[in-house]
Amino acid sequence: MIDQHHADSTVSVTVVGFGAMGVPMATRLANSGLTVHVVDPSAEARARADDLGLDAFTVVNESPTCDLVLVLVATGQQLLDAATAATTGRSVRGETWIVSSTVGPNAVRDAAKILRSGGAAVIDAPVTGGVPGAENGTLRFLAAASKAEIDSASKLFAPLGSVVVVGDQVGDGQATKLVNQLCSSVHLAAAAEAVALASRLGLDPSRTVEVISGGSGASWFFDERGPRMARVGDSPDVLTRLAILAKDNSLVEVEADAHQAYVPLLKAAKRQYERAAELGLLEEDDSQLIHAYFD
Amino acid sequence: MIDQHHADSTVSVTVVGFGAMGVPMATRLANSGLTVHVVDPSAEARARADDLGLDAFTVVNESPTCDLVLVLVATGQQLLDAATAATTGRSVRGETWIVSSTVGPNAVRDAAKILRSGGAAVIDAPVTGGVPGAENGTLRFLAAASKAEIDSASKLFAPLGSVVVVGDQVGDGQATKLVNQLCSSVHLAAAAEAVALASRLGLDPSRTVEVISGGSGASWFFDERGPRMARVGDSPDVLTRLAILAKDNSLVEVEADAHQAYVPLLKAAKRQYERAAELGLLEEDDSQLIHAYFD
Repeated sequence: MIDQHHADSTVSVTVVGFGAMGVPMATRLANSGLTVHVVDPSAEARARADDLGLDAFTVVNESPTCDLVLVLVATGQQLLDAATAATTGRSVRGETWIVSSTVGPNAVRDAAKILRSGGAAVIDAPVTGGVPGAENGTLRFLAAASKAEIDSASKLFAPLGSVVVVGDQVGDGQATKLVNQLCSSVHLAAAAEAVALASRLGLDPSRTVEVISGGSGASWFFDERGPRMARVGDSPDVLTRLAILAKDNSLVEVEADAHQAYVPLLKAAKRQYERAAELGLLEEDDSQLIHAYFD
Repeated sequence: MIDQHHADSTVSVTVVGFGAMGVPMATRLANSGLTVHVVDPSAEARARADDLGLDAFTVVNESPTCDLVLVLVATGQQLLDAATAATTGRSVRGETWIVSSTVGPNAVRDAAKILRSGGAAVIDAPVTGGVPGAENGTLRFLAAASKAEIDSASKLFAPLGSVVVVGDQVGDGQATKLVNQLCSSVHLAAAAEAVALASRLGLDPSRTVEVISGGSGASWFFDERGPRMARVGDSPDVLTRLAILAKDNSLVEVEADAHQAYVPLLKAAKRQYERAAELGLLEEDDSQLIHAYFD
């Protein structure tokens, strides 16, 4: 998977979190000639990194100081733990940390304080595009930092996708991603609700999805997930785990409540993710939210 | 507006309802060479028809029997009234009625019974595309009828847009449109909720809309209405009245409840249309639903 002939070792990157997104992103970075280290507490993930010829570490303070650190952890606490471990266990001076996890504005601001105190720069850069975007190098980074900081990470961004500058303050990227995820989590539930209604009205759900897709009733999620929802009874391959949108939905709710934002549709969608959890669907393809509307 | 040189009078059409959609549709039909009659109870609407050189009648039983009758009324009751008046006041034999109002499956099925008993054919063909689609001839008719019936109205459909066949039973067109309107009414509210959240999080709403548009968080409504929502404080021209989506939202709810369909997001959106009504926003551009999130 890694094409060693391209390696020129001029830029070194530590990828923190070697999961569904980390594996394809680290692979693309290594193939584009960067020296890539991997940090993951899971022995299985580290074995996979070994197989790919990438140096792997259990915790970030064991990894060498690099030019760039790409953070792909699951939660805000994991981000803070990594920032604390790095600044107390080794030097972060001269490193630029790119936080591409969706963890909310407060977590990335807190982590930035810790990292900057150790001499690192921080780019708040959550992504949209999911695993397919990571595999194909078509992610969109919603980046917030100074122009100089964003430019300093261009060799990391280029092989992974495109950068959309959404602000110059750390936190603006996360905030923008939360707004995107409000839409996404509501649209996924709306798609399931619409496909279920089509069934109840006696329509052919697949034909109905086909007709509505791309028109005035459509959303990116309706068009992408609708066809799999309409094949009710199928068990599709897991392209994106339902747990991801359920997690993001909860994260948006916490931030919205903290800012006294009125988010009734988000909260109505949340109840459907809770139903899906009760039905044991969170590790299924996210199109399977449709079952929350039938069961 | 009407180009009389094209008129060859081979096909006659009665347009029932000369409002925001009826005016541009009747104009296009007349310009494509059809003989067009207009029916509208409003003296103002009839005067406008006169100005355009179209024969205008107060009620449908005063109008002559035509080849095609295009129904663009606002409610199911108005459709039933028109069907009853036509079948009791004059002959409908040989006419094909194209019901393009959004009135729900039951109303169009009841009207079809009445009209068929008088010898008319019925095509259930609600439209998407709104006033811009009517003006530009880019409407999409979600048509349900036999192929022969749909073919018999091709001279009406051609100048107005495209036909998507969604079923062969009267009612299937309305049902498909309801599913589309579930998505539309939820997506409009989700867009308002997202833009309001962007403001609360301290982001520039216009920039946030720009970044999210066209990506994984987008919907047709987000992309189209979002920019106008983001200019909070502006009073945009009324492109589509908020009352239209509010009416369709209620219509979907009635049908969903009748079929015991679970539609929690639709109901959450409904509350926002009710807030908008309380705020006196229903005659405003539908992007102004944003105020339900701030006021």
